[in-house]
Amino acid sequence: MIRFENDYLEGCIPEILEKLVNTNYEQMPGYRLDDYCETASRKIKDSCNANYLDVHYLVGGTQANMTVLDAILRPHQGVVSTILGHINVHEVGAIEGRGHKVLALYNTDYMDEDNIELAQQFDEESKLSPQTLKNYLDDYFKKDDWHTVQPGAVYISHPTERGALYTKDELIQLKTICDEYEMPLYLDGARLAYALAAEENDIELEDLAKYCDIFYIGGTKCGALFGEAVCFSNKKYNKDFRNITKHNGAIIAKGRLLGLQFDVLFTDNTYTDKCRDAYMFAMRIKRAFENKNIDFIANSFTNQQFPILSKEQQSYIKSCGINFNYETKIDNDYDAVRFCTDWATKKENIEYLESVISKL
Amino acid sequence: MIRFENDYLEGCIPEILEKLVNTNYEQMPGYRLDDYCETASRKIKDSCNANYLDVHYLVGGTQANMTVLDAILRPHQGVVSTILGHINVHEVGAIEGRGHKVLALYNTDYMDEDNIELAQQFDEESKLSPQTLKNYLDDYFKKDDWHTVQPGAVYISHPTERGALYTKDELIQLKTICDEYEMPLYLDGARLAYALAAEENDIELEDLAKYCDIFYIGGTKCGALFGEAVCFSNKKYNKDFRNITKHNGAIIAKGRLLGLQFDVLFTDNTYTDKCRDAYMFAMRIKRAFENKNIDFIANSFTNQQFPILSKEQQSYIKSCGINFNYETKIDNDYDAVRFCTDWATKKENIEYLESVISKL
Amino acid sequence: MIRFENDYLEGCIPEILEKLVNTNYEQMPGYRLDDYCETASRKIKDSCNANYLDVHYLVGGTQANMTVLDAILRPHQGVVSTILGHINVHEVGAIEGRGHKVLALYNTDYMDEDNIELAQQFDEESKLSPQTLKNYLDDYFKKDDWHTVQPGAVYISHPTERGALYTKDELIQLKTICDEYEMPLYLDGARLAYALAAEENDIELEDLAKYCDIFYIGGTKCGALFGEAVCFSNKKYNKDFRNITKHNGAIIAKGRLLGLQFDVLFTDNTYTDKCRDAYMFAMRIKRAFENKNIDFIANSFTNQQFPILSKEQQSYIKSCGINFNYETKIDNDYDAVRFCTDWATKKENIEYLESVISKL
Amino acid sequence: MIRFENDYLEGCIPEILEKLVNTNYEQMPGYRLDDYCETASRKIKDSCNANYLDVHYLVGGTQANMTVLDAILRPHQGVVSTILGHINVHEVGAIEGRGHKVLALYNTDYMDEDNIELAQQFDEESKLSPQTLKNYLDDYFKKDDWHTVQPGAVYISHPTERGALYTKDELIQLKTICDEYEMPLYLDGARLAYALAAEENDIELEDLAKYCDIFYIGGTKCGALFGEAVCFSNKKYNKDFRNITKHNGAIIAKGRLLGLQFDVLFTDNTYTDKCRDAYMFAMRIKRAFENKNIDFIANSFTNQQFPILSKEQQSYIKSCGINFNYETKIDNDYDAVRFCTDWATKKENIEYLESVISKL
Repeated sequence: MIRFENDYLEGCIPEILEKLVNTNYEQMPGYRLDDYCETASRKIKDSCNANYLDVHYLVGGTQANMTVLDAILRPHQGVVSTILGHINVHEVGAIEGRGHKVLALYNTDYMDEDNIELAQQFDEESKLSPQTLKNYLDDYFKKDDWHTVQPGAVYISHPTERGALYTKDELIQLKTICDEYEMPLYLDGARLAYALAAEENDIELEDLAKYCDIFYIGGTKCGALFGEAVCFSNKKYNKDFRNITKHNGAIIAKGRLLGLQFDVLFTDNTYTDKCRDAYMFAMRIKRAFENKNIDFIANSFTNQQFPILSKEQQSYIKSCGINFNYETKIDNDYDAVRFCTDWATKKENIEYLESVISKL
Repeated sequence: MIRFENDYLEGCIPEILEKLVNTNYEQMPGYRLDDYCETASRKIKDSCNANYLDVHYLVGGTQANMTVLDAILRPHQGVVSTILGHINVHEVGAIEGRGHKVLALYNTDYMDEDNIELAQQFDEESKLSPQTLKNYLDDYFKKDDWHTVQPGAVYISHPTERGALYTKDELIQLKTICDEYEMPLYLDGARLAYALAAEENDIELEDLAKYCDIFYIGGTKCGALFGEAVCFSNKKYNKDFRNITKHNGAIIAKGRLLGLQFDVLFTDNTYTDKCRDAYMFAMRIKRAFENKNIDFIANSFTNQQFPILSKEQQSYIKSCGINFNYETKIDNDYDAVRFCTDWATKKENIEYLESVISKL
Repeated sequence: MIRFENDYLEGCIPEILEKLVNTNYEQMPGYRLDDYCETASRKIKDSCNANYLDVHYLVGGTQANMTVLDAILRPHQGVVSTILGHINVHEVGAIEGRGHKVLALYNTDYMDEDNIELAQQFDEESKLSPQTLKNYLDDYFKKDDWHTVQPGAVYISHPTERGALYTKDELIQLKTICDEYEMPLYLDGARLAYALAAEENDIELEDLAKYCDIFYIGGTKCGALFGEAVCFSNKKYNKDFRNITKHNGAIIAKGRLLGLQFDVLFTDNTYTDKCRDAYMFAMRIKRAFENKNIDFIANSFTNQQFPILSKEQQSYIKSCGINFNYETKIDNDYDAVRFCTDWATKKENIEYLESVISKL
Repeated sequence: MIRFENDYLEGCIPEILEKLVNTNYEQMPGYRLDDYCETASRKIKDSCNANYLDVHYLVGGTQANMTVLDAILRPHQGVVSTILGHINVHEVGAIEGRGHKVLALYNTDYMDEDNIELAQQFDEESKLSPQTLKNYLDDYFKKDDWHTVQPGAVYISHPTERGALYTKDELIQLKTICDEYEMPLYLDGARLAYALAAEENDIELEDLAKYCDIFYIGGTKCGALFGEAVCFSNKKYNKDFRNITKHNGAIIAKGRLLGLQFDVLFTDNTYTDKCRDAYMFAMRIKRAFENKNIDFIANSFTNQQFPILSKEQQSYIKSCGINFNYETKIDNDYDAVRFCTDWATKKENIEYLESVISKL
């Protein structure tokens, strides 16, 4: 079976394995006090052109989200998200488990009538529109409604859960609104490398450092065995973050493993380079479906593609030995499904997939 | 510098790296549904002679403790522990972070006067005496004092935080008391391999399956890169545990990494065999100090040794390029310190340490 | 100013004050072990024709909801609610503060197309349709999607937050669905007396005992100074509930105060009788608006009425010295607002309000 | 039976009931926005000579402690307390339920050897010695041990759980140490009126405002039906406290009930005056036991007395129709027990108790 159902199907880029092997017997202090955490942070700061960053290494995305939000929210506060935001859907309530409501917004509830089609598109792409955010926050703080959960942070993903991309202009607008309410903007970069590799993307690493208060650079889905690099741009929010990671069971004894991986990923342009093929392959999948006049539930320019397929089309593809994921129901006959590429996707498998799609 | 300060100084046993390299491009489903989690669990069950085990893989010890206790305690319940129990001291309140008090008991408060010296020894060795547990639980449930935290589980470590060992007889006694109150007995095996390798140990893997309701087999400190295998012997407690790991940010996407490591560790007798030298080396360190009439704060038969050294002695050893950990203050001149060996400790370093000690 | 903005504007029915005065110097044990808690529970059981009830007294509604849900949900579980459910909107995240997501459902997302108008009505009335619940639970448990929050309880209010009433038939259907999934049905009766006093209501106290696993009888808004009586019909869920109230800071030292109030309220038919006028008055307000062809956002047969008024109409009423509450925006010119009656509402104020409405 | 087992046996001082009756039908806005909360706060500020206070009204002591600590601690922080501190013993883990460890200190572990007897006395009186606090904090922050819970607040009770009193000098010392570490000092005044009424007390209300960052003035045990007034002296800690009370289910709809009671208690000198007899009576009980050469477990100058009685003595007193509470076991023959007086204690009952004691 050839698998396209997600982007954590394989191990990691070979340079990481190599370095693991070569450094295996070096003795290093634990809990991220080792040399590799140090050099990795240096390289990340350089890549972001942001010497002021405070970089921490966590094991996975849900853990990163739950620990960051635990650190920055007060008890009565929640976090603003899109409806499809990873924290709202796929973390078994990890944020609520730390005491905080996810304030999940429909753009269609907040954008004005002229923009209703755009609002629908944003909802399907899992993007938070600046207009939505502004209307929501204006309304909340104008009413001073202390019987409802107070928004205390804003969470976005880039690329989004549906593979879509924010524009740099949108990011700046979101940040400006957050600043108006002295609220941190937190960006989940679980699949950041695939955004950075996309031609359509105009948000660079240094924009994240400039326009987000906190962001994380995803490793698990972007070439590492595991690991996410949480970066604080704003020193207002990282106080005692290391203690809070331990409090959340979110720090590993052999911190070197995380440092080492990000050291490799941020040597030269490895992080983005290793995911460029995945972007190209995803675009080929996209075009293959488009050529068959097949629609998508969201317009993705990254490694996840969400075509809308009939039950019959799905069966045919599976019968050819290709696996993909169910995303959501469209109607009784059609579902949106997900095809992912990743840093390890093989060219011949893409070619085979193209040939299968061409026969739909 | 030669480091003896902890047992997570290096990477992992080479067999694991080798398997990582060899399987790197295999496509596997995520979240522990891969083949290696399957085979590892099979091997662990066989090693424990306990087909009924339900095995889960978590990343680290604090995470395992917090997730297990989150799963098995009700809101008003706490967990019984020794004063030096890892959950009571070194987890930045991760258990409290999940809402539960650690009910840390001094043996000296609960054992009768005839046993007061034994109680002191237990306190220093971080062992929970069956008499302590019995007296505490009898007292609590006799009074039915619902204004105080209700004990809902019992936590012990084997070997303990001070390297000491429970006897099989003590384990059975603790289990019997727990059963009387229908309370789960949970054993933290962060350094279990060093106990299994010790000649003085009479608790085998199958005893854990028989006499603990839940236990975890430590990987991080026993030859793995990271990872702990949480085993439920009692099906009363594992309901929806997988969901609860995700809720705690305690499940990694590439579950294969954990499965693969435990598959290697539980192939043949690797887990114990790889830590046998560490045990031998620790006994050599022990004898070296004993030969100088140096006392220990606890009588350890495993890889951690806690001699009581003067400031001067400590300085001398450090001046020889050897590092160790501070454990606790004895008086203004003396501290208990910690020397650890692990699966990667080199014979020549032990010999050098012996020669340094001999000159104290 | 004459206030209609809520139903907790005054103190309590005079019989309660009288009993407080008469029993003031009696010495009673604390924490609900007094005689009045005993007699009140006896009377509540009799009123519900349910000897098997376990009755607890808490201070307020948010506290009751948070404590009950803390007791009955496991860490990875959430509670199903309507979008307008009190726990979803007006409790500053108290449920999330205890670790649990509120799984707020739009009926419009779950009911079939033939019922779309009904679904909209249910959404506006804050009612959970049995079809919605069934579709949601069937879907969740069919997929076994352990990456998302597991529904662990169902929360409904009677009357609802918009004053609407479930029918007995709907209640039975909801219970049947809950039973199918072994999930507790929990009913918030903050304003229960106003439902019991309504001619349109066919759910009696004994139906609550029969068809809910847990429900609370509201005191604060129904004639008491404060207090809610939490009743467990199903003994599967009340284990150690007293301990859990204390754990939540939800038990008062002088439990007599709560027992005494519910003793008075459940002597004869006081609870319902005292709120009958409020029901009548609310119906008069309803008719007064209807006579002016003014619409309502929800069809309420209880003490809360939600007419849709223009800004101008609102100003006029306020200029007459009458206060009411904002509920929600309809468009730039119109808002839904709230008028409440309660056990203390005076006939002459209703007459005055009618005359004011007649001039709109 | 004549009850001395606690200080919440009766209702409240008659002036409160009278005011409840007289104001019953006044319409007031909810959630502490009423006139009485306003006037009560004014009077409390005047009594404390501290115009800068921010006063909130909560229902009970556990609720106040849990809500205040929820508001002021960050996730990885705990609260320093004595071993016998109410938050450490009698709140079913309410503080841990909000995620925070109670860092309960034995004075005997922290005071130097010259002061070991004093340390024992402090432990028995449930007082936190300034030397203990200083040694503990110095040690913690010198080591910067981020693997252990970080102290984030200091909790003391005045009078203590054993009826003892801090001196003003001790209070100032504790505050000075807290300031050094920028840590809030929080004082639990559940029984404050009995301290204020004591001749031996030299801490006045204005000292609390001056030397505590937060403190609460107990109502429940000091003449009110229920209620505690939480006062913030330091504006660094009260941000959004109202929201946090709601988040904790700790705000009642009819806030007037709390405002009204504290208005009465702080009119003239009612709060202290009403508890003066209780103090006198407690001193008479104390002398009665002293006259029989009966020892006490702690030297209390307030309304709780803790004599050490043989089983036989206890039986005799009970056989005379007098009830008291068990406190703690001394040995197989002797227990420390508790006799409480309160604002409602009757002179004739004290006389009778004296006569019973005289026959021991």
